[in-house]
Amino acid sequence: MTMTKPTVLELAIDLINRDSITPEDKGCQERITEILEEVGFQAEYLPFEDVQNLWIRKGTQHPVVVFAGHTDVVPTGPVDCWSSPPFEATVKDGLLYGRGAADMKSSVAAFTLACREFVEKHPDHKGSLALLITSDEEGPSINGTVKVCEVLKQRQEHIDYCIVGEPTSSKAFGDTIKNGRRGSLTGTLTIKGKQGHVAYPEKVRNPIHLSAQAIADLSAQVWDNGNDYFPPTTFQISNYHSGTGATNVVPGTATVIFNFRFSTASTPESLKKTVHSILDKYHLDYDLDWVLGGEPFLTETGNLTKAIQQAILDTTGITAELNTVGGTSDGRFIAKICPQVIEFGPINASIHQLNEHIAVDDLEPLKEIYKKTLSNLLL
Amino acid sequence: MTMTKPTVLELAIDLINRDSITPEDKGCQERITEILEEVGFQAEYLPFEDVQNLWIRKGTQHPVVVFAGHTDVVPTGPVDCWSSPPFEATVKDGLLYGRGAADMKSSVAAFTLACREFVEKHPDHKGSLALLITSDEEGPSINGTVKVCEVLKQRQEHIDYCIVGEPTSSKAFGDTIKNGRRGSLTGTLTIKGKQGHVAYPEKVRNPIHLSAQAIADLSAQVWDNGNDYFPPTTFQISNYHSGTGATNVVPGTATVIFNFRFSTASTPESLKKTVHSILDKYHLDYDLDWVLGGEPFLTETGNLTKAIQQAILDTTGITAELNTVGGTSDGRFIAKICPQVIEFGPINASIHQLNEHIAVDDLEPLKEIYKKTLSNLLL
Repeated sequence: MTMTKPTVLELAIDLINRDSITPEDKGCQERITEILEEVGFQAEYLPFEDVQNLWIRKGTQHPVVVFAGHTDVVPTGPVDCWSSPPFEATVKDGLLYGRGAADMKSSVAAFTLACREFVEKHPDHKGSLALLITSDEEGPSINGTVKVCEVLKQRQEHIDYCIVGEPTSSKAFGDTIKNGRRGSLTGTLTIKGKQGHVAYPEKVRNPIHLSAQAIADLSAQVWDNGNDYFPPTTFQISNYHSGTGATNVVPGTATVIFNFRFSTASTPESLKKTVHSILDKYHLDYDLDWVLGGEPFLTETGNLTKAIQQAILDTTGITAELNTVGGTSDGRFIAKICPQVIEFGPINASIHQLNEHIAVDDLEPLKEIYKKTLSNLLL
Repeated sequence: MTMTKPTVLELAIDLINRDSITPEDKGCQERITEILEEVGFQAEYLPFEDVQNLWIRKGTQHPVVVFAGHTDVVPTGPVDCWSSPPFEATVKDGLLYGRGAADMKSSVAAFTLACREFVEKHPDHKGSLALLITSDEEGPSINGTVKVCEVLKQRQEHIDYCIVGEPTSSKAFGDTIKNGRRGSLTGTLTIKGKQGHVAYPEKVRNPIHLSAQAIADLSAQVWDNGNDYFPPTTFQISNYHSGTGATNVVPGTATVIFNFRFSTASTPESLKKTVHSILDKYHLDYDLDWVLGGEPFLTETGNLTKAIQQAILDTTGITAELNTVGGTSDGRFIAKICPQVIEFGPINASIHQLNEHIAVDDLEPLKEIYKKTLSNLLL
């Protein structure tokens, strides 16, 4: 029989040793259930296709505080380049190495044990606690958190606060809380011209030339000035391809792929409208396909940010900064059903890399921060 | 024994049936020699590496009139798509089909026989006649006409007029003489930035954005206004490639390949200087490699243009237009050692294509035009 009251280090090692490359879970969720069912949590498995999801809750009252996370990890890369096997958690010189050590099995271990200890110590706490765990955060993110949120929404199971265990700390453990994320909007633009020989420019319509000023205008455009919580929206062309390879042929089309990371000062609609107006100004013949990778979310300063900032300060002595930069996370999905969502977790410097690791000395404090946050919200 | 007084059709068929894909000659030059040696021409073979070249001349006096051409042809493309085998010359519905029918074995046949008939009919003509034939016009053009011109220059064998048998006619046979060609200058521009994640634009330098306004300026630039003989210089970007394929990565470099077709109103140096000044205006970090594909040449209106225009008018009733548009030809090499070079030949609509052909009815008139041009210059 496995321990149901492990240390964070012990539980993190247990989880890391399960090679749960996305969308695998490899029993992580059952391990969490085992620990929390002992203190009255009720587990509900919500698998969708090849994805394992766990919704495990204690209590029926509001406010409902949810810890969200994922048990899947990104692939290891070349195993031979790791200093220790990625799925054999190894402590060396004060660091715990292994795939998922920072992103985010240590957070999962920490908040699982924080919840257990909190309800053991405060059986008469207010509200409810729950965990939303998926095995599809590093993959397509189609059958994971999105689907669980849809289920909760459908049965009108409201949640009030959500803490996502993403590794948000930057230079020092505890220095950064994400209180939002920018949205991501990708456009694939195909500019149409007419192919021909470079020696007969009167017979061609060069899509590179036709669109050159529009591309320059797009590159120079100020999309918004951001706001109190977000930096200004950014626009980056990631790919520009045109040409047959032959140096004497004018190409017939040019394909430009670009991406917005956008603040709540813009909307996908406002950005699309501006792009079209710039392209149309030059009377271009084009196709433009859009993919909304994620809508932005924002949790303004309030109960949740204060509760976790105080918990971090009390535990580490650091005043955590709130920011919204960086990539996307499952927070964007939860934000649709939860008014206050923040992300907090360990230092993210090694995530997705070889020799991913976390400082052993950050593990118990991480649990303490999560536990104190619960105290600040539910006592 | 083969005929030494064939018709143009017979000789063209003989040449087309030799599968002389560049740089092959397949005995074409020996066939020409056979026909012209009988009337006093002296043949000199000037092979360089795998290229066959023929310099065959009659007379030692000035003016020296040269017909220039090539016996090599471009590849056939898919043989099954031809209506008749490309190296089995076939007459159908008044058209002679075969690879090289228009570019330029019919011209070679026509001017070979024009020379023979001219010297037979006018044994006391002024000046000299010569043919400069290569098997490397469709290939790299390194060991063909360039090398023969170097030999002639070295031994101070001056020539006065040169008619290149390239297929210059456009809509009607006889409508166009090329009295020059634009130069070709190609640039390969590598713009350097710094690769990174689209979510962290402050850490990247996007080469597409950095160069966007410079590319727009280059596309909009007026390089010159041409002159009496040339249209304005043109600039075309043939290839623009940047991006890793991933939509969330800002690329580290952008590669842009462009080509000038330039008039005698510009020089390679003036064009390079302007490109650099536009790039430097935006403080870009870049590499730029240049290849001068061909310098422009120009034969102003004079004895040669008048002689062939009159010959065309007398033969076809058409007043040929002089122009300088289109691709490059060996004329640019000959122009370095010959003050007056023009190009004239059949309709070019089918060259380098499947089912290349020439109208049988244009063959004898082509010979007549070449012969009358000789009369206009040497009688």
